[in-house]
Amino acid sequence: MFFELLKTDKGSQARLGRLTTGHGVIETPIFMPVGTQGTVKGVDPDELKRLNAQIILGNSYHLFIRPGLDIIRHLGGLHKFMSWNGPILTDSGGFQVFSLAKLRRITEEGVHFQSHLDGTALFIGPREAVEIQRTLGSDIMMAFDECPPWPAEKTVVAEAVRRSIRWAGMCKEAHAGISAGPTRDQFLFGIVQGGEYEDLRRECAEALIELDLPGYAVGGVSVGEPEPEMMHAVASTTPWLPVHKPRYTMGLGQPHQMVKMVAMGVDMFDCVLPSRIARNGTAYTRTGTINLKNSTMKADPGPIEEGCRCYACQNFSRSYIRHLLKAEEILGLRLVTLHNLHFYLELMAQIRAALREDRFGEWSGQFLKDYRPKDE
Amino acid sequence: MFFELLKTDKGSQARLGRLTTGHGVIETPIFMPVGTQGTVKGVDPDELKRLNAQIILGNSYHLFIRPGLDIIRHLGGLHKFMSWNGPILTDSGGFQVFSLAKLRRITEEGVHFQSHLDGTALFIGPREAVEIQRTLGSDIMMAFDECPPWPAEKTVVAEAVRRSIRWAGMCKEAHAGISAGPTRDQFLFGIVQGGEYEDLRRECAEALIELDLPGYAVGGVSVGEPEPEMMHAVASTTPWLPVHKPRYTMGLGQPHQMVKMVAMGVDMFDCVLPSRIARNGTAYTRTGTINLKNSTMKADPGPIEEGCRCYACQNFSRSYIRHLLKAEEILGLRLVTLHNLHFYLELMAQIRAALREDRFGEWSGQFLKDYRPKDE
Repeated sequence: MFFELLKTDKGSQARLGRLTTGHGVIETPIFMPVGTQGTVKGVDPDELKRLNAQIILGNSYHLFIRPGLDIIRHLGGLHKFMSWNGPILTDSGGFQVFSLAKLRRITEEGVHFQSHLDGTALFIGPREAVEIQRTLGSDIMMAFDECPPWPAEKTVVAEAVRRSIRWAGMCKEAHAGISAGPTRDQFLFGIVQGGEYEDLRRECAEALIELDLPGYAVGGVSVGEPEPEMMHAVASTTPWLPVHKPRYTMGLGQPHQMVKMVAMGVDMFDCVLPSRIARNGTAYTRTGTINLKNSTMKADPGPIEEGCRCYACQNFSRSYIRHLLKAEEILGLRLVTLHNLHFYLELMAQIRAALREDRFGEWSGQFLKDYRPKDE
Repeated sequence: MFFELLKTDKGSQARLGRLTTGHGVIETPIFMPVGTQGTVKGVDPDELKRLNAQIILGNSYHLFIRPGLDIIRHLGGLHKFMSWNGPILTDSGGFQVFSLAKLRRITEEGVHFQSHLDGTALFIGPREAVEIQRTLGSDIMMAFDECPPWPAEKTVVAEAVRRSIRWAGMCKEAHAGISAGPTRDQFLFGIVQGGEYEDLRRECAEALIELDLPGYAVGGVSVGEPEPEMMHAVASTTPWLPVHKPRYTMGLGQPHQMVKMVAMGVDMFDCVLPSRIARNGTAYTRTGTINLKNSTMKADPGPIEEGCRCYACQNFSRSYIRHLLKAEEILGLRLVTLHNLHFYLELMAQIRAALREDRFGEWSGQFLKDYRPKDE
């Protein structure tokens, strides 16, 4: 069985679950570190294991463009290429095609676009997205969808919803065609679009459920919308998703947002923030983010966060890390990245422990009281 | 006893030795990875231990300018600041003051200069250099010297030699003044200047030997001179150095150069090349350097070097590392840096094993036959 729902919280929709893949078992709720170009930025696979990362994410669009499928096929797939033998989820490329690529032209078969690197003319449609992910060999693959910008007129979003539904069907067909091969253990997730429109979210969810896919994601979020709109989009989707299948909000979110989404019944998250804000010297703590470049850190002998068990906090002072960041030394970026990834992964471990011990309501109440979000 | 000469090769001046410091025992000949700004670029202390680094180098000039002595004193010295509990050698700042700083004015007491970072007016002389290194708490400190450029007129070099001799005496006095304190185990090395002039090299060495310092370095090399001049400067110095004290060539060198210098009786090396050329994607192998960005590496499933036991070679292909380098991912730089540092440290381990087993002549002959140097 791919997904087991082990427990549902009494006071919320929060769920404890288990995903079984060909590369390992994943306890949910889970955060997936993002390995855009075949590496979680600045972190090696041994460090990921020491961080207790259970699954990581790879980006089809980026890997398709560079190094390209021929190379990854020749090297034996993404797991072997990047020397990560745990589970991998790949996105379909849809999000990047619509947010990063240039000169798009959409047809019923897919999207013509130009590489953001060198302008090469390329094409990805639902069949190609499945083929790319088959070559990558990910454990969970995502359907190819149309991700409209925010804000967008309802007619535009409705068209994207209906196309995404048709494309999901084409993905399922393409996936079925390879189901007898060595990639039979690749689980295809559908992506619910619909922007801020509740009826479109429901329409999309219900149509995708008819495809009976092994998991479902909330897409069309993390596209620049304010937090209330984002939370509303998730809240407008999860009620229509099947209880016995995993739910994944794509590209989300900040710690307090993830805690709230867990309470809404979300099982899986991915987000570039832990790595991205590390590049600016910003670190997560239980009370919110702090910037290690601040002059207040200059002579601070304490760790980034007292009590934190990450490699950075166990070995280095704020003062030293600030020095590294100011001197633009790679180790500074590495240490803040490790801390932030640890924070996200540890947050999920705490959520799972609270769910297991029937104290998620209490735990999440305390966390949300302590954590003061800033606009990152 | 600080230095024990365990064995001298029968067919050359090569020596097997042992340095005992307050932070650990060092087997010589040894390569010291360079930690310019309080970190060996891109590498964390645990990785240094896994690389079997026995001692690392810190740069007084850089640490004096940033983060500054107040911070490092407050954080408990350089070992604690950077979380490295093995031995550290610090240079005196002399080399950087003469090569990096702006608007120098030399007096008998030292050098007035401006920080290369922000133009701040600063001063370092022999007493200040000892004080800086006392604060850093290094296990081996270097005398403050005047390092003339290459090429330089003999009168200029002669003046630098005589000033460096006077300054070494002042360093010894300053060091003696602190010898009763907690830093009594800081060993002060003298630096032989003299450029390409044999008589000046001998004059400088003989004058410094009268100071009876625990070790001696060859300075004024790695300043842009061609390889023959560099080797000549070392060859003109080592014969005048005491046999029962360690010899260190500062800032050197390439693998084949180090093997040759070991044969000339040199015990200690430091060099930024393993890290610097990694930034360009260049890796060391037993037959010379290779550039991992080359298109020939594109689909190469093999490691950087067959048989290499470093983390990069044990886990990743040339193809993957090339992809990371082309995508400007930090992990690419990290992996090549780890390989190159492993190569240098392993080279020294092989030299020590060969000396121990009385086959250094054979070993070095084979190495120099196989290794084809390129101009890095």
